[in-house]
Amino acid sequence: MEVGAQREATQPMLVVQEETPPVVGVRAKDTEHETEAAAVELVVTQSEVLAPEGRMDYDKLVDLFGCQRIDAALVHRIARLTSRPPHRFLRRGVFFAHRDFNSVLDLHEAGEKFYLFTGMEPSSEALHLSHLIPFMFTKYLQDAFKVPVVIQLCDDASFLRNNNLTVAECKRLARENAKDIIACGFDIQRTFIFTNISYTRGAFYENILEVAKRVTCEDSIGIIGGSQEDNIGIVGFPPVEAAPSLPSSFPHLFPRNDQPRCLIPCAIYRDPFFRMIRDVAPKIGFQKPSLIESKILPALQGEESSKMSASNPNSAIYVTDSPKQIKTMVNKYAFSGGQSSVELHRKLGANLDVDVPIKYLEFFLEDDDEFEHIKKEYKDGRMLTGEVKQRLIAAISEMVSRHQRARAQVTEEMVDAFMELRPLPNMFG
Amino acid sequence: MEVGAQREATQPMLVVQEETPPVVGVRAKDTEHETEAAAVELVVTQSEVLAPEGRMDYDKLVDLFGCQRIDAALVHRIARLTSRPPHRFLRRGVFFAHRDFNSVLDLHEAGEKFYLFTGMEPSSEALHLSHLIPFMFTKYLQDAFKVPVVIQLCDDASFLRNNNLTVAECKRLARENAKDIIACGFDIQRTFIFTNISYTRGAFYENILEVAKRVTCEDSIGIIGGSQEDNIGIVGFPPVEAAPSLPSSFPHLFPRNDQPRCLIPCAIYRDPFFRMIRDVAPKIGFQKPSLIESKILPALQGEESSKMSASNPNSAIYVTDSPKQIKTMVNKYAFSGGQSSVELHRKLGANLDVDVPIKYLEFFLEDDDEFEHIKKEYKDGRMLTGEVKQRLIAAISEMVSRHQRARAQVTEEMVDAFMELRPLPNMFG
Repeated sequence: MEVGAQREATQPMLVVQEETPPVVGVRAKDTEHETEAAAVELVVTQSEVLAPEGRMDYDKLVDLFGCQRIDAALVHRIARLTSRPPHRFLRRGVFFAHRDFNSVLDLHEAGEKFYLFTGMEPSSEALHLSHLIPFMFTKYLQDAFKVPVVIQLCDDASFLRNNNLTVAECKRLARENAKDIIACGFDIQRTFIFTNISYTRGAFYENILEVAKRVTCEDSIGIIGGSQEDNIGIVGFPPVEAAPSLPSSFPHLFPRNDQPRCLIPCAIYRDPFFRMIRDVAPKIGFQKPSLIESKILPALQGEESSKMSASNPNSAIYVTDSPKQIKTMVNKYAFSGGQSSVELHRKLGANLDVDVPIKYLEFFLEDDDEFEHIKKEYKDGRMLTGEVKQRLIAAISEMVSRHQRARAQVTEEMVDAFMELRPLPNMFG
Repeated sequence: MEVGAQREATQPMLVVQEETPPVVGVRAKDTEHETEAAAVELVVTQSEVLAPEGRMDYDKLVDLFGCQRIDAALVHRIARLTSRPPHRFLRRGVFFAHRDFNSVLDLHEAGEKFYLFTGMEPSSEALHLSHLIPFMFTKYLQDAFKVPVVIQLCDDASFLRNNNLTVAECKRLARENAKDIIACGFDIQRTFIFTNISYTRGAFYENILEVAKRVTCEDSIGIIGGSQEDNIGIVGFPPVEAAPSLPSSFPHLFPRNDQPRCLIPCAIYRDPFFRMIRDVAPKIGFQKPSLIESKILPALQGEESSKMSASNPNSAIYVTDSPKQIKTMVNKYAFSGGQSSVELHRKLGANLDVDVPIKYLEFFLEDDDEFEHIKKEYKDGRMLTGEVKQRLIAAISEMVSRHQRARAQVTEEMVDAFMELRPLPNMFG
C-alpha cells in the first residue's frame, strides 16, 4: 500500500471512527405512499450504500421511497423559468428525483418565494468530492432562481457520533468545512451559514421542540436506522436536522407574516430524514418542504462497495488532493468496467454500468457532446480504460485546482460574515 | 361536589392533562451501589407516588436508591457551620436523605465554593404547596451558606409533555411560576433564574451534548420511566435537565478556572434523574453533583393516593388559595388518621402514620414544641381531628397569605432582573 502510506504521510487526515454508523434503512411504512417495503433489496445507509450486482438501482429507489422522477419536461421547465441552460446535474440526471419540486416552480412562476436549505455534518478536515455535489447544485439554484440559501453545519451531530472528537474540534471542523462551502461560490447577499452549536437557541430551538413533540422515539430510531443502544443525542437528532426546513427557524431572514416555502437539495439517501418533516410540517402550520434529490457519487471502488466515506481514505478524492494524488487515486483505485486484456476490450467494449471513471465523468465533465462521445467509444471498445481515466484525471484536477484557488481566498472574516446573524435585504433581489 | 364546583368557578385553573405521565421507576441496576432492586414494592413516579399501607416507606427508599440518611450529627454540623438554627425541614427530617452532602460541607469548611441548583417544570398557572418545598429550602441554604442559586424552569419539557400547551403558553407559565419562586425570598445578588427555551444555547447546549453523548437511549427511557412510544423530545430530555449540574453551563457566573461544586436540593423521587449526571459528570471532567433530598408532601387524600398533582385540583392546596378555600380543602379532603367516632377516638387516639393534617404540620408548623405537643395529644385521643385541622388551616393560611403578599410585590421587571444574563459579583459575599 505504497500510495496509501505516502498519502498518509503528506496529508495527515482525521480519520473518523464511526462506532455506530447510522443506517438510514428503508422504512417499512412509507407514510406518504403507504407502500409496504417488505421485500427491500437495497440497503441505503448514511455511510454506506450497497447495490446489488455492482450498480445502484435508482429506479427501484424512487419507487420504494415514493418520490417523483425528474423528467425531460421538468428540466426544460427549469431552463425556461431561469432563462439559462440547466445544470449538467440536471441534464445528466444526477439530480434525478424530487418531491413537490413542481409546486415550487408553480410558486416561483406565480411570483411567490422559496428558500433553499442544505447542509452537512463535519467529520473531517477536508471535504471529498461527493460532499461538493449538493453545494455545487444549491449554488446553481441560488443563482438561477435568485433565492436565499441556509446552510446547516451539524457540528453537534458530529460530536455526538464520534467518540474521538471534542466539541471544540467539531466547532473547528465546521469552520474549516464552511470555507470549502463558501469556495463553491455562494452569494453572501443571499446566504446564511450556521453551525448548530452556535445557532441553537430561540426560534430555532422552539422549532426543534415543535418537531420533537410530534416524532416518537421509535420513529426517530427508525429514521436514523439506529437502536436503543445509541446515545440519546443521536437518537434525538432528527428534529434538529429537520427544523431548518421551517422558515420560522430564521426570524432574522423571514418575517412571521411572509414565510417562504423550503426546497432541499440533497442526496437521495437523505429522503427518509426529510419525509419525517414533510409529515410533521403541516401539523404545525407549515408547508411541506420540497426535495430535489441526487444520485450518490460512488466510492472509487465502485457502487457495490460504498459511497465515499471519510473512514476509508482510499475510497475518495479529497478537495485538498494534488493533481499527482488525483492521478494516483484514479489510476490505482477507480474500478474499471473495461475488459481484462486490450484484445478482449477491443472486442467486447466496456461495461459502463459498473465503470467508475464513466460515473465520475457523468458528474464532473461539463461538455455533453464529449461525454456522449467518450461513452460510445469506450462502450464499443475503441477507447481504453487508461484513456478514459486520463480524461477523468484532467477533469477532476481542473475542478479541484479551481476549488483550491477559491478556497485559498476564503478568510476567517469571510466565514464570520457568512455566519453573522443578519437580515439579507437583497436575498430575493 | 359543591366545593369543587365553586373552586372551579372562582379560580379557573389550567388543568394539565398528562397523557404519558413519566414514571420514575426504580431502576433495576443502581450504578453506584450495584444493588439489584428486583423485589421493588415502592413505585415512585414523577406525577404519582404510591405507598403500600397508606404510608411512604422512606427508609426503604433510601436503601433502594442507595443514598445516605441525614442524621442528627449532620443537622448539628450544618447548624454549627452556618451559625444559625437548622431549618425546620432539617429538624423534622423533611429533608432526610443526601448524596455526598458531607463533602460539600467539607469543601465549605475548607473555604471552597459550591452553588445550588434547583428548578421545576411549569405546568399550571399557580404552584401548589409541594412545589414550594425545594424553593423554601434552597432559599434557606442560600442565606445560610451565602452561595449562588441557579433555578431552571423547564418550559420546554412542559411543552413536550402536554399536548394542549403551546410554546407561547409554556413560556408565559414559566414567567408566572418565576414570580412565585421569587416570592420565596431569593436574593437577587445570588440568584439566576432561567427558562430552558430562552437559555438553551452556547455553553449550556454544549453541556447538554456532552451529557447526551454518554447516555444511551435505553437508559434515557429508563430514567423517565417512559417507552419508545413517547415523543423523542421527552425521551431526550434528561440531559437538558442534568446540564445545570455542570458549572460550565453558566459561563457568566463561574470562570472556567474556578468551577464550584453543585448541590441539588430536590424531592427524593428526583434521585434517579440526578444519579445519571452523577455517573456522567466525572467522565467529562466534573465533580459529581451532591444531592439533598426531601420527603414528598402527600396529596390531601393521603400517601396511598398520590402526591399533589396539577391534574387533580382537589388533591392540592394552591398558593393562590384564599383562607376560605384552604379551610374548605383541609376540612373536606385532608385524610384523617382519627377514629370514626369521638368516643372511639378518645379511647384509641389517632393513627399519625396516615394522618394528613399531621404530615402537613410536619412540613409547615414552625414551632417544634407545639408540633410535638399536638402529635402527643392527637395520638393519645385528647385532640380531635377537627382541632388539628383547625391548627393546620391557620398555619397554612398564614404562610399562604405571606406568600401572596410577597408575590404581589413581584413585578415583570423583577422577573427580567432575575433572568438577566449577568455576572453575580457578590454571589459568594
